[in-house]
Amino acid sequence: MKIIITGVGLIGGSFARDLRNLFPQAGILGMDLNPDHLERSVKLGVIDGEAGPEDVAMADLVIIAIPVDAAIKVVPEILEKVKDECLVIDTGSTKFRLCESLKDHSKRRNFLAAHPIAGTEYSGPEAAVTHLYQNKTLIICEVEKTAFKLQERAFEIFRQLGMRIRYMDTRAHDKHIAYVSHLSHISSFMLGKTVLEKEKNERDIFDMAGSGFASTVRLAKSSPAMWTPIFKENRENVLETLTEYIANLSHFQQLLEQNNFEEIYGEMERTNYIKTILKGIN
Amino acid sequence: MKIIITGVGLIGGSFARDLRNLFPQAGILGMDLNPDHLERSVKLGVIDGEAGPEDVAMADLVIIAIPVDAAIKVVPEILEKVKDECLVIDTGSTKFRLCESLKDHSKRRNFLAAHPIAGTEYSGPEAAVTHLYQNKTLIICEVEKTAFKLQERAFEIFRQLGMRIRYMDTRAHDKHIAYVSHLSHISSFMLGKTVLEKEKNERDIFDMAGSGFASTVRLAKSSPAMWTPIFKENRENVLETLTEYIANLSHFQQLLEQNNFEEIYGEMERTNYIKTILKGIN
Repeated sequence: MKIIITGVGLIGGSFARDLRNLFPQAGILGMDLNPDHLERSVKLGVIDGEAGPEDVAMADLVIIAIPVDAAIKVVPEILEKVKDECLVIDTGSTKFRLCESLKDHSKRRNFLAAHPIAGTEYSGPEAAVTHLYQNKTLIICEVEKTAFKLQERAFEIFRQLGMRIRYMDTRAHDKHIAYVSHLSHISSFMLGKTVLEKEKNERDIFDMAGSGFASTVRLAKSSPAMWTPIFKENRENVLETLTEYIANLSHFQQLLEQNNFEEIYGEMERTNYIKTILKGIN
Repeated sequence: MKIIITGVGLIGGSFARDLRNLFPQAGILGMDLNPDHLERSVKLGVIDGEAGPEDVAMADLVIIAIPVDAAIKVVPEILEKVKDECLVIDTGSTKFRLCESLKDHSKRRNFLAAHPIAGTEYSGPEAAVTHLYQNKTLIICEVEKTAFKLQERAFEIFRQLGMRIRYMDTRAHDKHIAYVSHLSHISSFMLGKTVLEKEKNERDIFDMAGSGFASTVRLAKSSPAMWTPIFKENRENVLETLTEYIANLSHFQQLLEQNNFEEIYGEMERTNYIKTILKGIN
């Protein structure tokens, strides 16, 4: 089996590591705009080497794990080149515009739109780990547009990686993921910014920071190269969530200004319900 | 040695557990408005029983770990009753108003204002754990107002619990802690609220939530009974941080509306500097 990983960072590299364990005989090659990433991935044993154009034509499986705006350019080009039996899986965090752009592609049936709800705040080849996808949710969009035999191959791989599969249409995916993922990143980045700005004038403020702050601001370590395209691609849904978030914060601010502590208590008590929901998330 | 823990929840109970290991011969009694908390704490072995008024007069050490507004009422009453050699330590998350209210108290020298930067999102007697304070920062305010011999006793205990001590004046404490702790809680509660509101209409949204969401929203599990008084006591500082946070979020929203992705990238890249700072926080 010949596997190509396009984008050898956290997501692509972690797939490479698991696929190597799953298919020890497979050749795993990488593609990346950054030659340094390719070199480091080879050194780390994540991939065997760089894939050239001729390798794409021979590949049985291509995993796309590049920024979402780049995927819109790269996926159709790769689909052009692959053989009829090749399965091309995209793993990006937005799905609507990519799937729209592929809907009339002659090789649409070779393509599977997937989004693993997995990752860390780290990036690059060194961030790639085995078992990243174990017990994680994988959202698949427009499954009916992928050739049945290729669906079967994909599901078998995902099953062996330990993933739970959920099906969703692309619009619902992009809308919902804005709430449970994209908004968290903005909330975290802007919290980090607010405190860093303060720290310029007030030294040693971070000596007072504990695990609560670390947890809330963790996502502010995320890669701007990955996240700028996500906010671009999912701009309208993200704006909607952000508007609601700011409205809720402003309401809390008003309650504080009005000394309405009974209602502040109520707001927190009702939100405590999140405990029930978080139990299911690891 | 006779120890009294006033408020047998996460903070007080965790002190009780560590003090029991440190002073196996000590009697540890509890006070709590909630009789059920006392009963559960005895069953868990956190305390030996309930403290009556006569026990306060005999105590060598009193740890105050109750909501910050309650502390303002309770601390002066306890100080009235304790003997001259007794050390009374408050552990609350705001310090200015409490210390102001005690400044002319005849037993001010028996009091030490401390704030351990430690905790979890859980509360109640079951949340109490050993070693909660190990390698954590303890902020002490107005140290010079505590009797030197009692300072010495306190420092020896904190040293044995493994804490790093920092000194700060009460105004600076309350201002800075608003940034690195209180704001994180509001950010997290309102994020939880925003997503819960959405979920009412969009079922199964949480199936899409991963560890990033869980991390950012973790503090929304915190106790409203503990946090409402903190926001009340530290209202002005919290309002200042919240205003800056909302301004930063609104600026990000504007950048998105203007499609200024270059600047969005810049905002995130500059905030990535938080990585350097978070390295020091466990």
